[in-house]
Order: sequence, then structure tokens, then C-alpha cells
Amino acid sequence: MAPTSSILWRNLRVHQIYGANTDVGKTVFTTILCNAVAKRYKRDQTFFLKPVSTGLAQESDSWSLLSAISEHIARRAEHGPGWLFLETAGGVHSPGPSGTTQADLYTPLRAPVVLVGDAKLGGISQTIAAFEALKIRGHDIEAVLLFRDLEYKNYVYLRDYFQTRGHVPVETVSPPPAQCEDDSSETASMLSYYDSASSEDGMAGILHALDQRAKDRIARLDSMRDKASNTIWYPFTQQKLLTPDRISVIDSAHGDYFQVLDSESQSSSNRPLLKPAFDGSASWWTQGLGHANPQLTLAAAYAAGRYGHVMFAEAIHEPALALAELLLKELGNPRLSRVFYSDNGSTGCEVAVKMGLRAARTRYGWAPGERLEILGLKGSYHGDTMGAMDCSQPCAFNEKVEWYDGKGFWFDYPTVQCTNGKWTVAVPDALRNDLGDSTQFASLSSVFDLDSRTRDGQFEGYKRYISETLEQLHDQGRRFGALMLEPVVLGAGGMLLVDPLFQRALVEVVRASSHLFETTAPSSPPTSDEHASSWSGLPVIFDEVFTGLYRLGRFSAASLLGVNPDISVHAKLLTGGLVPLCATVASEPIFAAFASDDKSDALLHGHSYTAHAVGCQVALESLSEMQSLDARGAWDWAKANGWSAAQTPPDTTMTAASVINSSSSGDSSDVNYSKGLVWSIWSRDFVENVSQKMDKVSGVWALGSVLAISMRDEKGSGYKSNAAVSLRTALHKGAGSWNAHTRVLGNVFYVMGGQKTDKETVEELQALILDFLDS
Amino acid sequence: MAPTSSILWRNLRVHQIYGANTDVGKTVFTTILCNAVAKRYKRDQTFFLKPVSTGLAQESDSWSLLSAISEHIARRAEHGPGWLFLETAGGVHSPGPSGTTQADLYTPLRAPVVLVGDAKLGGISQTIAAFEALKIRGHDIEAVLLFRDLEYKNYVYLRDYFQTRGHVPVETVSPPPAQCEDDSSETASMLSYYDSASSEDGMAGILHALDQRAKDRIARLDSMRDKASNTIWYPFTQQKLLTPDRISVIDSAHGDYFQVLDSESQSSSNRPLLKPAFDGSASWWTQGLGHANPQLTLAAAYAAGRYGHVMFAEAIHEPALALAELLLKELGNPRLSRVFYSDNGSTGCEVAVKMGLRAARTRYGWAPGERLEILGLKGSYHGDTMGAMDCSQPCAFNEKVEWYDGKGFWFDYPTVQCTNGKWTVAVPDALRNDLGDSTQFASLSSVFDLDSRTRDGQFEGYKRYISETLEQLHDQGRRFGALMLEPVVLGAGGMLLVDPLFQRALVEVVRASSHLFETTAPSSPPTSDEHASSWSGLPVIFDEVFTGLYRLGRFSAASLLGVNPDISVHAKLLTGGLVPLCATVASEPIFAAFASDDKSDALLHGHSYTAHAVGCQVALESLSEMQSLDARGAWDWAKANGWSAAQTPPDTTMTAASVINSSSSGDSSDVNYSKGLVWSIWSRDFVENVSQKMDKVSGVWALGSVLAISMRDEKGSGYKSNAAVSLRTALHKGAGSWNAHTRVLGNVFYVMGGQKTDKETVEELQALILDFLDS
Repeated sequence: MAPTSSILWRNLRVHQIYGANTDVGKTVFTTILCNAVAKRYKRDQTFFLKPVSTGLAQESDSWSLLSAISEHIARRAEHGPGWLFLETAGGVHSPGPSGTTQADLYTPLRAPVVLVGDAKLGGISQTIAAFEALKIRGHDIEAVLLFRDLEYKNYVYLRDYFQTRGHVPVETVSPPPAQCEDDSSETASMLSYYDSASSEDGMAGILHALDQRAKDRIARLDSMRDKASNTIWYPFTQQKLLTPDRISVIDSAHGDYFQVLDSESQSSSNRPLLKPAFDGSASWWTQGLGHANPQLTLAAAYAAGRYGHVMFAEAIHEPALALAELLLKELGNPRLSRVFYSDNGSTGCEVAVKMGLRAARTRYGWAPGERLEILGLKGSYHGDTMGAMDCSQPCAFNEKVEWYDGKGFWFDYPTVQCTNGKWTVAVPDALRNDLGDSTQFASLSSVFDLDSRTRDGQFEGYKRYISETLEQLHDQGRRFGALMLEPVVLGAGGMLLVDPLFQRALVEVVRASSHLFETTAPSSPPTSDEHASSWSGLPVIFDEVFTGLYRLGRFSAASLLGVNPDISVHAKLLTGGLVPLCATVASEPIFAAFASDDKSDALLHGHSYTAHAVGCQVALESLSEMQSLDARGAWDWAKANGWSAAQTPPDTTMTAASVINSSSSGDSSDVNYSKGLVWSIWSRDFVENVSQKMDKVSGVWALGSVLAISMRDEKGSGYKSNAAVSLRTALHKGAGSWNAHTRVLGNVFYVMGGQKTDKETVEELQALILDFLDS
Repeated sequence: MAPTSSILWRNLRVHQIYGANTDVGKTVFTTILCNAVAKRYKRDQTFFLKPVSTGLAQESDSWSLLSAISEHIARRAEHGPGWLFLETAGGVHSPGPSGTTQADLYTPLRAPVVLVGDAKLGGISQTIAAFEALKIRGHDIEAVLLFRDLEYKNYVYLRDYFQTRGHVPVETVSPPPAQCEDDSSETASMLSYYDSASSEDGMAGILHALDQRAKDRIARLDSMRDKASNTIWYPFTQQKLLTPDRISVIDSAHGDYFQVLDSESQSSSNRPLLKPAFDGSASWWTQGLGHANPQLTLAAAYAAGRYGHVMFAEAIHEPALALAELLLKELGNPRLSRVFYSDNGSTGCEVAVKMGLRAARTRYGWAPGERLEILGLKGSYHGDTMGAMDCSQPCAFNEKVEWYDGKGFWFDYPTVQCTNGKWTVAVPDALRNDLGDSTQFASLSSVFDLDSRTRDGQFEGYKRYISETLEQLHDQGRRFGALMLEPVVLGAGGMLLVDPLFQRALVEVVRASSHLFETTAPSSPPTSDEHASSWSGLPVIFDEVFTGLYRLGRFSAASLLGVNPDISVHAKLLTGGLVPLCATVASEPIFAAFASDDKSDALLHGHSYTAHAVGCQVALESLSEMQSLDARGAWDWAKANGWSAAQTPPDTTMTAASVINSSSSGDSSDVNYSKGLVWSIWSRDFVENVSQKMDKVSGVWALGSVLAISMRDEKGSGYKSNAAVSLRTALHKGAGSWNAHTRVLGNVFYVMGGQKTDKETVEELQALILDFLDS
């Protein structure tokens, strides 16, 4: 099923006719509009459609048929604008056949709205409420029409009201004549009425305004690339290389899809202007419940209407407290007890670092000026602010930033990919000593079966490598203040799936190695060690900004490692993809490190909009809905997508002694599946199939909603590689009526869905990708 | 006039009865509810009020009377809950006597809502639309009641619909009997109907649910301080010193006021629980159009409904482009041509610094690793992220931050205050050489009359001091990448009003001193110098996060200095105080410094929610509305508040030769006033009066919506001073039925309004402040 396209044509004016109530005259007004058009334009290019009556609008599925109809009309109307009026059924929230109400049903079409107001007693209220119901779904209401009722004169009030709310014109016609006794008089009387009503100046004015608005909208869309190219300074973009034609003009977005201006439409009036594009980066990894989700909108608007924003220092409001409580409970990490809010992942990671460094410094008694470093992984990335960048090793992201001053040691680590049909842990040179260069597993679940794998020699090998490294660093006199990891997947660093066993080993070794971090006698005796949530070695920070909150299929990515960090950072999906918000969650001993009678010992960090009510309320709604999706089994289709052990093709990957867990824990994937441990919306068959396209692909993995394909690049991998661009381009070309917007990270192509992306959509994307790989 | 208090009592249940339409049976249902209460509770404690019919609800002004009535009832109902039902008039958006619609009119009361649904044809739509109109104004709808119409059965659909939208219970009763022929039968029939309807189980269930929700709400409010104290990590707060009783529990906010839990109500059931508190820090300087402004809510919801958030790299959407265009036009700075979006002032300042440093480095040919510094003012503050902190000199905000590494030279500078009735520019030791220690002016307008003052010796003196300092720095071999200033006022650094002439001199000298910054021959010949917007010397960054967008009375604070920066940062008021957003605006030559064929030369900065549609749309609405307020003369009362020259008391401050501009430009304040240059919502009389309370006050200034009073502190000033706390405490005690929340910065007490704060409110605050100073 192809996604819905918004309806916009150069030579066809399409409007939705909504009613503020039933029985307000929608059909009468639509007929008048049609007559008025016929008087002004060509009669045979005016159309009037009632999608519900005609069997369309069963659900948004059927909009493709509507698309075809509008295309047919647009082609007929080549020499002048045709007009198509879509009359909705009942009031704005009257349920359609599927139960979805009109206002939601027609949202993806985004045709401008003519709202037929209510001229009766109480009609002012009905008209404004209808206007708002449409507005909060992103509809553009371009005219309000109602009968010129001289008793209530609702139009007088409404004219002023809408004038100050977007200058929406309000126009009236006299009401239709009273019903006649016989049918033929009735018909004659109505014909005469329509003739005169459609001749009124007001109607001509409205038509002109609607036509002008449509022209303005199209002209604006046509001009936006160039204007953006000249006025916007784009994030993370070498704009010298960004020609205007490569800028996507996004008219709206709904569910998984943007509605993007089709540049080819500019040279052909026979093409629709807008084309759906799958949001394959989930808008920089933020989207969960789909674009323009009405429940998130309503949550945001409720908080805006209840609080606006209220300052948070020394104050508390319900959404901030409730969100803190929800996070602490659902993260399931008994160490965590405190929530600090900020505005995005970068600032949240800076807060985490400030927390970790202070805790370590006070524990180990170092002076404030002492140079402290971070332990991390090569290629890790924690955001773009300078402090967050300093947590990463020198790389393309920071090497030219004037104030970059990386402070840390970054470990090599083994990574996981499916290569030529085999789930493989590849060990880098630095670790190879006694680990060999790669290990193969029966399934991704086996890789994540840490209960078994921690009993393996590989785990001891990892720990030995880590310990030896820490001892060398200690001998060099370097001082570390925190271990900071993106659990499971390194995002911006190249979509790398790290061997979870290695991250587990790293945390365990660091926690067991206090002696390697204290360079002087501890200033405060570690009495806090008795505390259940006390930290040892170094504070462990997990940056779950990308990996957490169901992106990898679970509320917390840490749970995939079976590790409880001391500090955990959450953003992106936190608000389901609507507004910026970040929560840095910490343990009580970390918090206690800032306690003092001196206010300058406090964590002196805080942004103006800290814990803004809109963000917190949206996060509450979003997290609750994702939990509810989980509980309702909404992802069962994905879990059954080959990821369950029962569906694992027997023995396919067990080829050698290097296959681990094949017999001893052949059913471990079963165990993990039953825990919901590892699964993906991308089917296992597809992933393993991709991994066998060895001429183009060097490896692939999928977890949760993420798929990452490492493309072969003879010139080497890394951020500057262009190897993945051709796959990206193929998806951008798409499948005729729609395409997919994706991003690449050097030689890694990745694509991800939201938490409501359905099976059919995933299958279509899989087919597109395989088409390219087979070409 | 006292501000409205939300109505919440321990022993009185107050509900608003809204109708989904006229003629849906609001009065019938309210009567049934009253009868049901009487059956269950004491009859004499049930009340039914129609504010419109009783002459209340002329406008929110009259809510104080309603408060008094509810207080009276609450006192009567000492031994058990009383019930008060407030029946609204017509539908949710039926206009009240003043023209404001019901949904907006009752917002500040925030009594929970019983929505009477529409059982008729089309009633599903009416009921949902009404629900949403209430919800987006922050109302809590706790029950939906409607007639059990067996033809349409709207309640069946609505029950499911509201179950999945907040579990709102939907209950029905049978419709009232048909009208009888005579009055007495009618009465008997209705009495019997009410008796039976109010006995239905469903009604008892609803009453129980309403009662339970009220108890839960109160219990939650009572517990929030302690819970917050245990789960929240507060920004910028030494939490060891923050006892739970000092945490403000904010139930909602409206206009200038929070609704805060009155802790004294916990020991007395005779006290209302909520008390209005003036938001005297404008919620950390963010508020412009008032809390919970319905127009901003609708703008936010529209963008959420149209886009959600769409990723911004290589894409454009209407709100982001329109906002960029508006900013570029209205900042009125011909140098600026590019808008970079981020999430808050800190990140926006980091972006500005990255821009400035790169431009200087490429111009002057320095290597990437070279240590570059910032020129700034002592006490300047640009945010809490580490990179932003590094732009400030060592101080209480950063001295204990482990990775703080201040990189800059920070100038001393003269400040402006009214002291003992005189507008005085105080010159610090470093500049005194030939400038004396202070200069007095006839008015604040004279201080800002830079056209005259740049012709003075003082200007030359400033420039000489700056030049000499730059030469010394040059001789020391230090390299600078940008001049970064908060124009006019240093915010977090202590609410210091800097002599505008000094900032003007600083910019002019830096721009004229290229030879003092280039330490090697320029790598690229300065051909760009021919460009009208080219920079010379150093890129000039203005951090207008606090000072811009009408906080000081003008769209741009730079315009008060007559200076056009190369980079300008805007946040806080940008979104009128609703959600985080920041815009860093730059010139084309700055932008061009990142142009290259290598993508790693790009400005590699960008947050997930960069240019989020909700923020951009709200900013558009907010800025347009503030401009419209300006154009409509909404601040004329403030401009006439003694700030106009005509109202300057003649000669009062012209006492000596040190008075500048008294004769030569005695009318310059007139000129400036006509330009709208300097004015404040705080009256000049009041400010000058405060400045004469010499036992407590060392100086005071007011500009735009800001008032800052430096309190005398024998122990010295600065961030750690507690001198201003007593004034803060006095305002927190307030005036009986309301109080004011303010913040202090060491010995500086400050308070500010929003851009819609009215004269009466300001006058009440002025009276409170004078009361304290006179005590």
C-alpha cells in the first residue's frame, strides 16, 4: 500500500468543506461554491465529492483512490484551474466509517479548509471549537462561511474573532428558502436560490481569496529552496556543497512520512506538487509515535494552556514530577534516584560529565584545577556542545573546532555484524592477543545472551585487556573522572553495534578497580560504599540519548547489558519526537557529592526552560503510549520476524568450532526472546540476506527500529566516505509515488522506523533496499 | 485589584459545568448533580451558581467576588465537603459579557470540569470539539455527562473515545420527560424526574469519582514538595540548603501569576489551598505574553499537528523559514543574513563562538590548535554549557566546574545606576585615569543619547583605555577570536547596566584595530572587506539572549547602542516564554568562513530538534504579537511613566559641572523618547524614590520590563551575598491574598514583568517594594 500523498496541484484547487455542526449547510455552501466557480471559471472543471457517501474515506487507506481521482481532474483542467470540493460528513469530529473522526481522517491530505459555521443559537461556540479542532491538527482554515441569520448575527462576532486569529475571512449568504410543498417548486426555488447566492459579491471575494491563497502557497513552496539556501545556516552541513535543489521542502508530515515538494512538478503542471517521503532517519533519531500525532499535540497544548512555562528552580509542577517518577520507576535501575532536566542530549551529557567528575574528584580528593579525563570508546559521540565534544576522541566532528580539547582515553572494542549470513563478533587488533579475530554466533540473541557469555573465556579475555590498559594509564599518572558509554550502539560514531559482552566487561572492571583511579588517599572514607547505590572505581555514565526509550526495542538500553549505570542520559524519543527535552538521571551518592553549605558547590547548571511543562507533559504521554504499545503486543509482528528462536533456521550458521552457544545455549535465544531481549522491525531473513550481498555490503545489523548496513568502500571507511551515498540515492529515488529520506554516516547506511511503523512499510523499504543491492 | 486565585478548598468541591452546545441540559445535569449530592451529603452544603446570570463573570476581574463566595461556603461546610457547581453559559466558546469566551474566561479558576455532552445528531463531534477546546486551555475534564438518547447512542462512541484519552468517565441519565400542559404538572413531573435521575447508580459513581479526584489532587499537592525534594535534582541550587518547605508547588499559571500551594493551608481547612504569586523573574527571564496564553498554545498545537518535528538538515519548513525572515528583517541590522537554530541560549552562544573563532582564524591564518581567546566584560555570562562558561572570567558560576578553562580577557567598565536621585555613570578604578570616578546625567535618556555623548571627551577617554589595553594584550602575544558582549545589561553577572557609551567605544576600537589582532600575515587577503557586511578587527558577537526582543523595550538591544554586531544570539523571549529555542544570526562573511569543498570544514553543530516546528511557530506568533503590541501603543502608559522628557522634573538632578548633557542636550531625552529609546514599566518617580533609600539601597535602575536594586551589603557584593534576600522575603510574604516570587543575584534584587504586565500590577509591586524599603 502506497502512503497517502497530500493533494496539491498547480491547476486544481482542492478544498475540504468542514461543518461546525451537522445541519449547518455544508452541502448548500458547497453547491453555492460550485456555482460560483462555474460562473467565474469553466463549469466542466468544477467537482464536488463527498468521500464518505462515495465509499471513499473508509480509512486513510482509500486516499490513494482520491489521489487518482484528483489526478484525473487535474489533467482535464489543464487550461485553467479546476476546483474540487471535498465535503466531509457531519461535524469536525463526526466519526468516519472506521471510527476515526473527520478532522483526523483528512489530516494527511492537508487540503485547505472552508469551514461552514453555525448560524444558529450557540453557533459561535460551535464554530470556534470546530476551528480549533482543525487548527490543532495542522489544517489551514482559509474561509468561514455561514448563513446570514439576522436573529443571532453570529457572523458579526465571528468576523472580529477570526480577524484577530490569522485574518480568516468570514462571509455570509442569505439562508435558503423555506421548503416548498411539491418537489418541482422545491427544485425551482433552490435553483433560483443557488443562482442568486452564488452571484453575491461575498462569494466571489471568497473564491478569489481561496484562489489567491492557493497561488501564494504554491509560489511560496516553489521559492523556499532558494530562500532557505540564502537565509538558513544549516546544522552539520557543508553548505557550499548543498545546492538548493537538494533541499527538501517539507509542507507537512504525518505518521512516518514527510510531504515533500516534488521538484519535477515545477516543470509540469500535470504532476502533483507533494510526494510522501519516508522519514528514514526518524528525523535525526527522534521520532517514535509518528509525526503530528494528535495525542502528543493535545498533551503539548494542555501543558501550554495550564502553565505555559514556569521557572523550575525551587519550584515543582505536576508534569515534571510525574515524568521524574515515571523515569525512575521504568528505567528499572535501583541505583537511580534523581532527575535533572535540560534541553537536549548535548546539554544532558554535559550535566552527566559535571556530575561524574565532581563525584570522582571529591571521592579521590583531587583539586578543582586538576586535569580529569573520561574513559570511553573510540568513535563515541555525546553531542555538539564543546564540553560534550571533549568527551570524544579527535575525529572529523571536532578536529577543526577551535576550542576542542579532548580529555579521555578511548578503548578499542569488538563489534557485531551479520556478515555473509553469519552473526559475527569482530575483534580489533588491540584485543586479538588471545581472542582470535572473530567469533560467530547462531543468532543475534546468542550474542546478547550475556548470562551464558560471561562464563566464557572471551569475557575473561576482554577483562584482562581492559585491566592491563587501565594499569598502563595509571602508571602514566592519568586521572579519570568517569566511564562514559553509549550502551550497545555507537550512533553518530558510525552506527556501530558494540559487542555487549565487552561493554559489560568494561563496566565490571572499572567498578572493581578503585585502586587504579585513586592517586592519593581518598579524602572521604568510602562509607557510602555501604549504600546500595554507591559507586566504585568511577561513576558510570550511560548516554542513552539515541539508544534508550525503545529505539533498540527496550525502555532502557542498559538492560540489554544487564548493567546499572550511576548516571543515565535520555532525550530524543523522550518526547516522542515533538519538542526538545533531556533528562539526566543520577544516583543518590552522585547527588550527594554536591551537597555542601556553600551554594557555589552546587551543580551550577540550568537552562531557562529547564523542565518546561510542554516537554514534560509530552514525554509523559509519549512514554506511556510506548509502554502501552509494548504491553498490548504492538510489536509482536516484529518479534516474530525471524528473531524468535523457534523461527531460527536450524544449524545454518553453525559451521565451525568458533560458533559459540550453539549447543550449550542453543535455546538461549528462546530465553532472550521470551524476555523480549533482542528483536527488530527489520526481519531476520532480510538482514541475513543483505549480509550476503558481499560485493556491496561488508556487514549489517538490525536491532529495535534500526537497520545499519556497512557498505564496502575501497578507499576506507569513516565519516568522510561516500560509499553509502548510492544506496541513499536509490532510496531517495524511491518507488514512483513515494520515496525515502535517509542519512548516511560515512560508509554506513542506516534507516530506522518509528515505534508505530507498520510491517507493510518495513517490507516495502526492505524490497527497495534489496532491489538496489541486487542491481 | 487583587489577582485571581484558583479555587481549591479542602472541604469544598468546586466544579465548572460546561456544555458541548447550548441546549444540551447543563442546568438539568447540574440540578441532578445537586440532588445527588444532597442525597449523599448534607443538603445545606450544596450550591449551584450561574456566574453569568448572577452578574459575576463580567470579566475575570469579578472572580475575586466568586472567591469570597466560595470562601463563605467553604467556611460553612466545615464538617464535610460542600459542593459548588458553577454553570457556564451556552457552549464552551460562547462569549461572555466582555466578549471573552467561556473556556478562556474561567481558565484562571482551574476548577475541574464536568462537561455536559451533546446527545443529539452530530453530538459526538460537538462533545469532542468542546473537550479539546477546554483541554488546550489546561482544564481538567473529570466527567462527561449526557442524556441516554437511544436513537443516536452518542454515549457508546464517546465512552470508548474518552476511555483512551485520559480515562474520562462518561455517564448518562435518561432524558427529562416531555413538557406537560400545565405548570404544576410540569413541576411535579420534573421533581420526580430529578429525584429518580439523581438516584441512578451512575450519578453516584460520578460523584464518588469527582470527590476522589479532588482528594487525590489535594493529596498530591500536599505531597509534591517532599517528593520533589527527593527525586528532583534542581538547577543552580544548593539542595542541602533547600528545605522542602521552600519549594513552590505550582498548580498552574496564568498571565503574570503562578497559582502556588499555600503551605499554611495544610494546617487549616478554612484556607484556600492556592494563592497567586507574581512571577517576578518572568520565569528566568523568559515570559513575554503571559503564562498560558491561548494564542501561543494554538500556535504550538498547529505546528505539532502539521509537522510534529521534522529534521532540519538539508530540509526547510515554513515556520523555520518565516521566523528566519522575520528575525533578519526586524533586527534591522544590515550585516545579518543567516540564521542558525539551536535549543537554548547556551548552545546558541557556543555556536556564536564557534562562528567567530573560525572566521578570525581563517582571516588571520592561525592553525586549528592555536589557543584563541575571547574579549569580553568582567562578569559577563553566556550560559552553563562548558564552552559558554569558558567565555566568562573565573567566578562563582564556574570556579568549581572541573573542566572550566576560561579563555579570554575581560574588561572593566563603567556602570549606570540611579543613586540618591541622580543618574550616575560610575567609572571603575582601571579607567579613572582621566575620567574621574563618576558622571551625573539629567535622565536615563541622556545616558543613552549616544549621538551627543560620542562627541564628548568621555568617549575618547574610553577609547584610549581600550586601545591601550589591546596593545598590551597584543604585546603579550595573546590571540583573540571574537569580541562577545551582552549589550546594555549583564544579566546573570549581577543585573548590571553598563554604560552604553563604553560598549559602543569597545566595538569601535576593536573594529578599528585589525593590526592588534593579526599575529601573522592574513592568509586570505581581506577582499571581503569590500562587502558591506564584512567585519574588521574581530567578529563582534552580541548575546541578546536576555536583553533582546523587547526585554529592554526594543526588538534589539543592539539598537540601544547604535551598533550592528556580526553575530547576534536570541532566545528566552523568542518563544514568548513557552518552549526552548535559540537563533544565532550571523553575517555572510562569517558564514563564508566555513565554506569549503571539505565537509569537515562545515559548522559541525546541530541538535536533534534543531528548528523544531513548534518552537518556530510559537516564536513567529510571539514576535508578531509583541510587534503588534508595540505598534498599537500598548506600552504608552509605561513610556509616559516619567520617562518622557516632558515629565522630567526640571533641574532636579543638575547640581554640578559633572552633569553632562543638561544644557547642550537637555532635550535629548525628548528625542530619545520620541524614538522610544529608553523607558520602563517601572515609573521614573518610583526608581528615583528608591534610589534615595540610602540606608538600604546603593543604586537602582529600570529599563524595559526590568528593575534592579543593588542593596547595601557591608560584607561586600557578589554572587554569594545575601543582602537582597530580605527584600525578596518581603515580596514573598506579599500582600495577603497574593505575593511575588523573585530571584536575587547576590546583593542585587531584581524583578521584571512580561510584555503584557499592566500598570496596576506594577504599581502594586512598587508599593510593596517601597513598604519594605521604608520599614
